[in-house]
Amino acid sequence: MFKTHIGLYTDFYELTMAQGYFLAGRSKERASFEYFYRTNPFEGGYVVYAGLAELLDVITHFTFAEDDLNYLKAQGLKEDFLDYLRHFKFSGDVYSVREGDIVFPNEPLFTVDATLIEAQLIETVIMNYLNFQSLIATKARRIRDVAGTRTFADFGLRRAQGLGGVHASRAAVIGGADSTSNVYAGKKYDIPISGTHAHSWVQSFDTELEAFRKYAEYNLDATVLLVDTYDTLHSGLPNAIIVAKELEAKGHKMKAIRLDSGDFAYLSKEARKRLDAEHLNDVGIVVSNQLNELIIKSLIEQNAEITGFGIGTELVTGQPDGALGGVYKLVECDGTPRLKISENIEKITLPGQKKLVRYFDDKGLFFRDGVMLRNEHPDLTLYHPFQHDKNTNMKGYTYEILSQKVIDQGKNIAPKYTIQDIKAFSMQRFECLAEGHKRFLSPHLYKVGVSNKIIAIRDKMIHQLKPKHRI
Amino acid sequence: MFKTHIGLYTDFYELTMAQGYFLAGRSKERASFEYFYRTNPFEGGYVVYAGLAELLDVITHFTFAEDDLNYLKAQGLKEDFLDYLRHFKFSGDVYSVREGDIVFPNEPLFTVDATLIEAQLIETVIMNYLNFQSLIATKARRIRDVAGTRTFADFGLRRAQGLGGVHASRAAVIGGADSTSNVYAGKKYDIPISGTHAHSWVQSFDTELEAFRKYAEYNLDATVLLVDTYDTLHSGLPNAIIVAKELEAKGHKMKAIRLDSGDFAYLSKEARKRLDAEHLNDVGIVVSNQLNELIIKSLIEQNAEITGFGIGTELVTGQPDGALGGVYKLVECDGTPRLKISENIEKITLPGQKKLVRYFDDKGLFFRDGVMLRNEHPDLTLYHPFQHDKNTNMKGYTYEILSQKVIDQGKNIAPKYTIQDIKAFSMQRFECLAEGHKRFLSPHLYKVGVSNKIIAIRDKMIHQLKPKHRI
Repeated sequence: MFKTHIGLYTDFYELTMAQGYFLAGRSKERASFEYFYRTNPFEGGYVVYAGLAELLDVITHFTFAEDDLNYLKAQGLKEDFLDYLRHFKFSGDVYSVREGDIVFPNEPLFTVDATLIEAQLIETVIMNYLNFQSLIATKARRIRDVAGTRTFADFGLRRAQGLGGVHASRAAVIGGADSTSNVYAGKKYDIPISGTHAHSWVQSFDTELEAFRKYAEYNLDATVLLVDTYDTLHSGLPNAIIVAKELEAKGHKMKAIRLDSGDFAYLSKEARKRLDAEHLNDVGIVVSNQLNELIIKSLIEQNAEITGFGIGTELVTGQPDGALGGVYKLVECDGTPRLKISENIEKITLPGQKKLVRYFDDKGLFFRDGVMLRNEHPDLTLYHPFQHDKNTNMKGYTYEILSQKVIDQGKNIAPKYTIQDIKAFSMQRFECLAEGHKRFLSPHLYKVGVSNKIIAIRDKMIHQLKPKHRI
Repeated sequence: MFKTHIGLYTDFYELTMAQGYFLAGRSKERASFEYFYRTNPFEGGYVVYAGLAELLDVITHFTFAEDDLNYLKAQGLKEDFLDYLRHFKFSGDVYSVREGDIVFPNEPLFTVDATLIEAQLIETVIMNYLNFQSLIATKARRIRDVAGTRTFADFGLRRAQGLGGVHASRAAVIGGADSTSNVYAGKKYDIPISGTHAHSWVQSFDTELEAFRKYAEYNLDATVLLVDTYDTLHSGLPNAIIVAKELEAKGHKMKAIRLDSGDFAYLSKEARKRLDAEHLNDVGIVVSNQLNELIIKSLIEQNAEITGFGIGTELVTGQPDGALGGVYKLVECDGTPRLKISENIEKITLPGQKKLVRYFDDKGLFFRDGVMLRNEHPDLTLYHPFQHDKNTNMKGYTYEILSQKVIDQGKNIAPKYTIQDIKAFSMQRFECLAEGHKRFLSPHLYKVGVSNKIIAIRDKMIHQLKPKHRI
């Protein structure tokens, strides 16, 4: 979306803090921050990690136009610091999990090693990009999981949160959607676009039959007819059957009818029966209208005769959650591990520069994830972060190091994947997740352990910090 | 956001339908569409109408670049139609309610009179812009309603739905926010920006006190100190008091402390007591952490000592709704009123080119809204759309015609208001809404009546359509 300078796409406090570090003579000081989230959305068992490729692009374009600097000057920022911003370009290193992978709470997904100022200034964009796209990719994955091989199209742009709809369409495809109605996203990301027609098309003609005939004349084998403008079973469906037979007589095959209201379980079965009675067995039945993964699951359990779903609002806005609560925390500064204490024990952060490792069982399924210091070897024992007696020795397990360098001294070195690559990888990874973690109701908790060294650093720091800060 | 051509920011079916109309020789045919919504969000009693100024800008930039046409050609659109798109420019008329006004379900808020193709092509952007910004402005209004004169800042960019965060900040201010953390939106819309510092600022220094001193040194009277990094009452607050006294000694006044976790009712009262004991009565107490209007209402009922709120996720994503379900329906085509029938009686549309009129009682409060044909005089009787015995004669009431022409033959003729103008207008209109409609629990329904002529056209059409379409 941003063609050139995007430095202003940030929270103001990033700039006032950065100015503070600058004025305090700390502009060369190094720091490490980590992005992670604490709770799976949708009461589910996983997240599909998305937004990475765009985020890396944004970070490497995180610069300020002269016009931006004038604006910041008017906001009271100081000349010396503005001059620093004038030449700002992110020069640090970034490690990340691969886009599309299946990830879990409290895992370091995206780690920034840079100057303190650099790492701070890009905080907001990191969260803005990863939180939202991961939320939507996860929602799409849940839908794909129940939709099976039926088609699943994103129809959400009209109900999307403004321009967020563009990112939503990208993430929906990563999570499993076949196509989007959003033409802008289709072109931008090279993803398939699809669409049928609206009620207004039917209303604009004198009769529904004439509207259907005209639509079929121009769309031939791509014809999908919306049958509920006046009356699904008494008007729409019979008219669609007439047109399907006329297409057939001309050597074409109508693609589908679309139901947009009413009881889909009943209507789809009735439509299937009547289509089949006319030997129109190949004409599909797609449905749309406030769908979500739970409704789809229920329709399938009722043996609804549906070949495809068009999903809008709940998909592109990630309902009922609306946001993934990812955070970005300082874990090391000036060579020293850092900690944020909290009255809520689960919110105490893990200090130090870390990496994420995934271990597989002998069937190739995900077995455990491990968080360890970057220089630790994965052949170690993983511990529950607060219950030391819960631990597993990982020696001998097959593993993958998920944290890979994607920006090296400011240069984007990540492999360039197409959206279809990312989608295929995501699907393949999802197949390595045991069924229990995919359940909609009370999914089984996937275990993420921590190395003993990290726990030792954390516990030592808690003991040091407490007396120092109590007055 | 879009600098030049934005024609692709649409659903694909708008383009396939437009091509259909074009190929059917209907490219000069006129049509009228109306945007309205059916249900108030948040189980509330109203909506703050927002997004208009940006939408008008988008409609007048709704054109296609050569590059876009190549993309559409690859999607199978036909040369003749692509040539039509090459020269596409919206040339119709648009009527709208003024941005910031308080509106209600089933009111024609935004009406397009144009060629059928023009009106169809802009459908998606109309819904994308109005649905989202109206949702967020409404959420912000609810928060402002309970926050009273306390400050209220948008902190949401990091949890916003991608670039939707930019629109969200605009809408939040229209609905009553004082400022935003979003620097990009601050510059783009000329709205105040604000921010404090993060936990990372504190963590990056050896001690909290040193971190506070440095922050105060650079921010002086604008200093707001986040006091919960280690321990609010035993560390953060005492350190903040030390720094506030030091600032005072230098002739400055610390602005506020910020609480970001814990029990705000208790902590704010405790903080107030300790600040006052040190004669720091002017130091404010701002709070942030997953707030919404219900939590704020509860805090105020508990007499929490809070002077300001920073609100993120729920504000900028419009939780728990996430979307306003506005629709855009054909009401007239080729000079003839059009109707969409539905099995659900409330979903039957009102045909014909209409206007919206607001009537006031003798105290200047909103009394009724009336929907009538564009050429009807407001001195008429308004009817419930489905219960004819429920009606009110509006003769003699003061009224305003809310539907005003904003685009005239493709030219944006809407007055140019600043965001502060729109916000002030919105606030003033909200004060004309009776208290019962503002309640969070079971708000009183605001009555919107319809003229007899519209009902007569609708009922006649229903009778004509039914037999024609039943087979």
